[in-house]
Amino acid sequence: MTESKNKAATSCSNTESCCIDIEKSICSAKLFNLCELTYLCQNFYLMQFSLQVSDPKSSARAGELSTDHGTIQTPIFMPVGTIGSVKGIHISDVKNDINADIILGNTYHLYLRPGLEVIEQAGGLHKFNGWDKPILTDSGGYQVYSLSERRKLTEEGVVFQSHIDGSRHNFTPENVIDTQRLIGADIIMAFDECTPYPCDYNYAKNSLELTHRWLDRCITRFDETHPKYGYAQSLFPIVQGSTFKDLRKQSAEYIASRGADGNAIGGLSVGEPHEMMYEMTDLVCNILPKDKPRYLMGVGTPANILEGISLGVDMFDCVLPTRNGRNGMLFTKNGIINIKNEKWKNDFTVIDNEGDSFVDSLYTKAYLRHLFVAKEMLGSMIASQHNLAFYLWLVREARKHIIDGDFAGWKEKMIIKVSKRI
Amino acid sequence: MTESKNKAATSCSNTESCCIDIEKSICSAKLFNLCELTYLCQNFYLMQFSLQVSDPKSSARAGELSTDHGTIQTPIFMPVGTIGSVKGIHISDVKNDINADIILGNTYHLYLRPGLEVIEQAGGLHKFNGWDKPILTDSGGYQVYSLSERRKLTEEGVVFQSHIDGSRHNFTPENVIDTQRLIGADIIMAFDECTPYPCDYNYAKNSLELTHRWLDRCITRFDETHPKYGYAQSLFPIVQGSTFKDLRKQSAEYIASRGADGNAIGGLSVGEPHEMMYEMTDLVCNILPKDKPRYLMGVGTPANILEGISLGVDMFDCVLPTRNGRNGMLFTKNGIINIKNEKWKNDFTVIDNEGDSFVDSLYTKAYLRHLFVAKEMLGSMIASQHNLAFYLWLVREARKHIIDGDFAGWKEKMIIKVSKRI
Repeated sequence: MTESKNKAATSCSNTESCCIDIEKSICSAKLFNLCELTYLCQNFYLMQFSLQVSDPKSSARAGELSTDHGTIQTPIFMPVGTIGSVKGIHISDVKNDINADIILGNTYHLYLRPGLEVIEQAGGLHKFNGWDKPILTDSGGYQVYSLSERRKLTEEGVVFQSHIDGSRHNFTPENVIDTQRLIGADIIMAFDECTPYPCDYNYAKNSLELTHRWLDRCITRFDETHPKYGYAQSLFPIVQGSTFKDLRKQSAEYIASRGADGNAIGGLSVGEPHEMMYEMTDLVCNILPKDKPRYLMGVGTPANILEGISLGVDMFDCVLPTRNGRNGMLFTKNGIINIKNEKWKNDFTVIDNEGDSFVDSLYTKAYLRHLFVAKEMLGSMIASQHNLAFYLWLVREARKHIIDGDFAGWKEKMIIKVSKRI
Repeated sequence: MTESKNKAATSCSNTESCCIDIEKSICSAKLFNLCELTYLCQNFYLMQFSLQVSDPKSSARAGELSTDHGTIQTPIFMPVGTIGSVKGIHISDVKNDINADIILGNTYHLYLRPGLEVIEQAGGLHKFNGWDKPILTDSGGYQVYSLSERRKLTEEGVVFQSHIDGSRHNFTPENVIDTQRLIGADIIMAFDECTPYPCDYNYAKNSLELTHRWLDRCITRFDETHPKYGYAQSLFPIVQGSTFKDLRKQSAEYIASRGADGNAIGGLSVGEPHEMMYEMTDLVCNILPKDKPRYLMGVGTPANILEGISLGVDMFDCVLPTRNGRNGMLFTKNGIINIKNEKWKNDFTVIDNEGDSFVDSLYTKAYLRHLFVAKEMLGSMIASQHNLAFYLWLVREARKHIIDGDFAGWKEKMIIKVSKRI
């Protein structure tokens, strides 16, 4: 991939006086519209990752990822806003109560609803949902993979049927880049095939090669196109290879060679044993460049996240805190609570007296249990907000311990605590 | 009914030195437990209604109702917290964003879930749901009436089957007072039969007489019992009589004669034409005492509420703002919006630029429409919060205009505006 910083220069054929040349080209050949001009003349491609502290006893790192929508301190957890909303939580609370620094959007879902026309007219997803910090969009690869019977995969891309109305659509590496440009994600993910677990070696090998060819097409398209809304976008490629060491190695080396702003590890947390996930993550992290952020997609439990951090992962996302929250599962510093259990019926202590969200001290366990038993919407709202605040606390606390130099010991104790059922 | 203010005196047989006498009685006869002592020795039964301004051109009034949980400026709308939560809204937002002064709880629902044992152990509904302002509970009469095939009504009370698990229960005037004492409502409603519409005259007449006999039993039980949690409770009787003028008159006169702290009008907004509801309300308001608050139960649309205020009603409750909100209907100063309509698809203006809730300026119409189309929980949350904030704005604005002396004219214009479909 062309080095980001060089992109604007390449486009206007002059590394020294970009603005003037572009202005000339507009006046003469009308090659660029005003939006593109604005984009090219500003100092874009600002995504920078600076590694601040590396833990001496593990591969954990504390870093800082700067984007045009603000700086993200890593390691970070990214709440999932599937269809443009983090389920059950006001966007003001995502920002000011949970204190999230970046959220996710799902390209597949947003493409279907509200559709690209609406998002474009809104001026991008940030304007549409009111979130003014960074957004990462997945490529739709994972959702399309989840459709199983409703999709057909070819060299060109994927033809699939909408889970909503059965209508037919196709995703290609090229149009998935265009779509994410249009959504306006700060971080765009490459189009990949997410292999299932377990997976036949030959299937995984062929799939991996296809994912790499798709990546090349993604990069080409990315380099040919520009951001639409006046801020920079970065493309992250995804390592695949199922649970096969040689394939993971091959993929990680290929991905590393492309010099992207950040790199992701996909195809894990799809049913394989945790130890296998850690083994693959470790192997891949040792190959991916140290000076770029590493994103472990779709992971995971609090313990998974702490192990991931320990292996050198900087970014995580998962639906667990919201989805399991909606089912009454609360993650806390002292373990996992199933709030629907009879044992909480008369527990009038607050939800979490060490919790960071306002919901933790506003409501009691007995009340929250009642809301779940009575199927009141507020129950899901409270549990989701609590869980996300806890996840954000967890990664911030991990960061503190990395900086303080005692991460490895803290992590071991914490994994036992957060994994316990209480 | 015994005049409220005299009740403590009656209980301790000494109007001049209540506390000392009670202390003696505890030491000697141990007639009172500490909780009752606290209750009797404090200056309870503080519910006072002061009429501040009466509109010269209508029967509208501005008043102030003081309770041990705070003062309510009337006319007021009371958000419905059926099972202990105002659906889809954090209790902190009910208080600080919607600025509600009083909320409702449903005795029938709370009796079934979480059940009386839990509420009592919590220390009452206020402690249970975190709401520290006044609460009014209905008596369960309306819900039991809604069960139709699943209940049997006798002189003694009602035997009914739970809508949740079919289990059998019975409500009597006495146990319904006990239940509301236990829930800890500031305002307790008498047990009544809510007649359907249309209703046979003889049925309505017999039902009315039963409701009056039940009221006597409610008052007796109320006078025999004490608040459980250290603050005063008031009992409001309910006028019935279906849509028959003579029955409504008879009922209103009977209810007025009982000297309660406040009086309610039930059995309306059950399917009868609006004009008939207004006629009955007018008739009843003219009989009920001027110096006590009047509560029109289960009403209604913004127009219904303005007409009700005009007829002399001080208090309203209705599920409309939350239930219709969950279906995508928004009430605004300029009319009614069905946010699911195609016309809002690309409307990127804020939900309500004159709205009082933070949701009104945080989200756009296009985004809210998208949330409803995609069935995202956040859509129901936003619409419910907007609608309740609008309802509270409406009654406060009515109060302002009553005080300013231009209510009648404002009301006529406002009814046209708020009833329009936009």
